[in-house]
Amino acid sequence: MRIAVIGTGNVGSALGRRWADAGHEIIFGSRDPASDKVQALLRSIGHNARVVSAGEAMAGADVIVLATAWSAVQPTLAAGGDLTGKIIIDATNPFLPGLILAVGHTTSAGEQVAAWALGARVVKAFNSTGAGNMADPVYAGVQPTMFICGDDASAKATVADLTGQIGFEPVDAGPLSLARVLEPLAALWVNLAYSQGMGPNIAFKLLQR
Amino acid sequence: MRIAVIGTGNVGSALGRRWADAGHEIIFGSRDPASDKVQALLRSIGHNARVVSAGEAMAGADVIVLATAWSAVQPTLAAGGDLTGKIIIDATNPFLPGLILAVGHTTSAGEQVAAWALGARVVKAFNSTGAGNMADPVYAGVQPTMFICGDDASAKATVADLTGQIGFEPVDAGPLSLARVLEPLAALWVNLAYSQGMGPNIAFKLLQR
Repeated sequence: MRIAVIGTGNVGSALGRRWADAGHEIIFGSRDPASDKVQALLRSIGHNARVVSAGEAMAGADVIVLATAWSAVQPTLAAGGDLTGKIIIDATNPFLPGLILAVGHTTSAGEQVAAWALGARVVKAFNSTGAGNMADPVYAGVQPTMFICGDDASAKATVADLTGQIGFEPVDAGPLSLARVLEPLAALWVNLAYSQGMGPNIAFKLLQR
Repeated sequence: MRIAVIGTGNVGSALGRRWADAGHEIIFGSRDPASDKVQALLRSIGHNARVVSAGEAMAGADVIVLATAWSAVQPTLAAGGDLTGKIIIDATNPFLPGLILAVGHTTSAGEQVAAWALGARVVKAFNSTGAGNMADPVYAGVQPTMFICGDDASAKATVADLTGQIGFEPVDAGPLSLARVLEPLAALWVNLAYSQGMGPNIAFKLLQR
């Protein structure tokens, strides 16, 4: 398969290298194909890879991987000409400084609760899995992860204890604004369980090595 | 610890039962404490649990767990009086029909890409983990999960193959609108790795049983 990887940063380099090793033809799209960095990347991959402009790369590809900064996506696509029928893998994320999503994500139920419950120490937790997992969270000896977030450290410590007491591994995801992230995690769980037909015996685990 | 669990549905029942078993004092808050269903729940828990109105339950509790429908949250909190200093665990999710988040989540980069790349078959993928995981995705023999979404089944099948070829377990999260969910998943990864200090050797796994 001919795969255009647009962007030669960490993500584009990693994906291009892995798919070149798997036997695919990789065409990197770069603003500066002749740069030392890009040429060094090609040499280190050693086979199945070349580099051209983003527009050229997209023109002949079966699959296009967007691995650029979010700000580069629109001009990149505009340079791609007719994209009808092409498979585009969008690996981008629209992060603003502070790791806030620039697109479509402005608040959360957790923050709204804090605005309504003045003075309370709100912790978002137990929203991102099913009740069946809360009743019995063991997956072949593995503890699922429960992500929690909040703005008060001692409240979070209490909730982490309560989480561990019923068999989850608590992981602190950060301040309450992370509810913008944990509520979509719940949407993922529900969609997988019920829209995608996987059923409720699924749970998230954060792997570490 | 005295824990007010507001809501006696699946989530409230499961959490209340587990924490009662762990030795905590559970005060369920219910709109209808005398109902057969609620009384049966208390009998099945058997110890450490009682039921009152939501307002009463919240008044005497160290920790308040919100486990109601989203539409009930604001009136519940309004009935709770002064909540200063109380720990509130927000286990709610503001879902609309179609499992769309009602609060703060209106679009995604993936959907924006599809609007810009007219006719292309956009698949969101490889956005929710780090480049180091793409280069080497093995966690003590366990394959991390790569969630993908898109509106074209054959494009998704191709991307799923490409995902598996470099060592991830692909999981189809649904239509492209699920990018509203997978982009926050990326925000979770980045926040854990860099804001919470866990570093980039973390990855999501969907457990199944």
